[in-house]
Amino acid sequence: MCNIVIIVEKILQMASSRKVIELFYDVVSPYSWLGFEVMCRYRNVWNIDLKLRPAFLGGIMQGSGNKPPGLVPNKFLYMTTDLHRLAQYFQVPISPPADPFEAMFEKGSLSAMRFVAAVQEREVGGDKQVEQVSRELWMRIWSQDKDITQPASLSEAAMKAGLSACEVEELLKLSTSKEIKDKLKRSTQEALDHRAFGFPLAVCHVNGKAEVFFGSDRFELIAHCIGEPTLPLAS
Amino acid sequence: MCNIVIIVEKILQMASSRKVIELFYDVVSPYSWLGFEVMCRYRNVWNIDLKLRPAFLGGIMQGSGNKPPGLVPNKFLYMTTDLHRLAQYFQVPISPPADPFEAMFEKGSLSAMRFVAAVQEREVGGDKQVEQVSRELWMRIWSQDKDITQPASLSEAAMKAGLSACEVEELLKLSTSKEIKDKLKRSTQEALDHRAFGFPLAVCHVNGKAEVFFGSDRFELIAHCIGEPTLPLAS
Repeated sequence: MCNIVIIVEKILQMASSRKVIELFYDVVSPYSWLGFEVMCRYRNVWNIDLKLRPAFLGGIMQGSGNKPPGLVPNKFLYMTTDLHRLAQYFQVPISPPADPFEAMFEKGSLSAMRFVAAVQEREVGGDKQVEQVSRELWMRIWSQDKDITQPASLSEAAMKAGLSACEVEELLKLSTSKEIKDKLKRSTQEALDHRAFGFPLAVCHVNGKAEVFFGSDRFELIAHCIGEPTLPLAS
Repeated sequence: MCNIVIIVEKILQMASSRKVIELFYDVVSPYSWLGFEVMCRYRNVWNIDLKLRPAFLGGIMQGSGNKPPGLVPNKFLYMTTDLHRLAQYFQVPISPPADPFEAMFEKGSLSAMRFVAAVQEREVGGDKQVEQVSRELWMRIWSQDKDITQPASLSEAAMKAGLSACEVEELLKLSTSKEIKDKLKRSTQEALDHRAFGFPLAVCHVNGKAEVFFGSDRFELIAHCIGEPTLPLAS
């Protein structure tokens, strides 16, 4: 009996000492995918409460006055190589679409991110669905060169993520509601309030302070910041 | 006798299997300083031949059509925090100048990098002087908020790095010669040929191929690329 009390106390202590990390991302961004997968791995080994924060990168670029890095030709070429190497290293099956500019800037991710926001709005008891639907959308745009703008595309991704046809129908409807449009706007604004200029953005809440990390290459600093070790999580 | 032959053979084998890493940098860039210090630490533990390649970042930005990242306000604010955290983590005493825009863009680093190129031109049997003079110049601009454009400033940095007054006088003269101006231009052009759009740029020569890494946050990938382990080289 006494042992059980001690164990319960330990669990409660651990839960209360858990550091919260918010991860702002958009499925239009391949570096967000890398950040997302590595953080999802770390959530199993660090004593953290990872909060997935789907948001809209287009709003971040507009709100911060930033320009997409791929507009500088040498940078675009470098990023292609960099993504390929990182994808292999972290074992994330990134394969750029044939026309990245069309996929990222002409078609974009507004309907997709509203859909993910709707999934999050309806999900109870965790964020497994948000995680899986996000991953399936990344698989479409950044691995299989498939559309993520049409209802049929969102539906296909959600079904692959394990949602029922009935749930998907409701979510598609919800995703175009004012409630969800506003929810996505609020999340995007929150990221801008943290001075975002791109994604992924990890916001670590430590001792009442928010420490902000941009990109998918600051895991060592994040570990250092929250007092956890880095591990070889390449795959 | 036989043992000595074996040892000499081993040393020769090691030397011939050494992978060459070229590090292009400019002392105007604080991320170059981080990359430089970490690579100088790794040169002691990896089986590599590190070739320091002082070059001119202004020429890279112009040649690639890239814009300094600090022109986006949120990015500038983030970089200030990011640099502070990285400096603490890697134990490099970075402290931004009071007016970074004046130091980086108005005053710039052309005379400083020509001076480093002159040091390299005259140094024989290694690159200890290039390393130390570069470090002293970074100490001035990115730690002590001191000038790096005037002959007296370059002289002070070089003397701190251990060069004699006589050597410094000759190097100051050499640094304004056509020979050295052309040398710095060639190095900058070589970086552009590797599709540089910023510094630091590490070019790893592996199996007859040049693998290019931008920034001071790809050490794990570089290690993976050259088949060496990463180590906790934070300090």
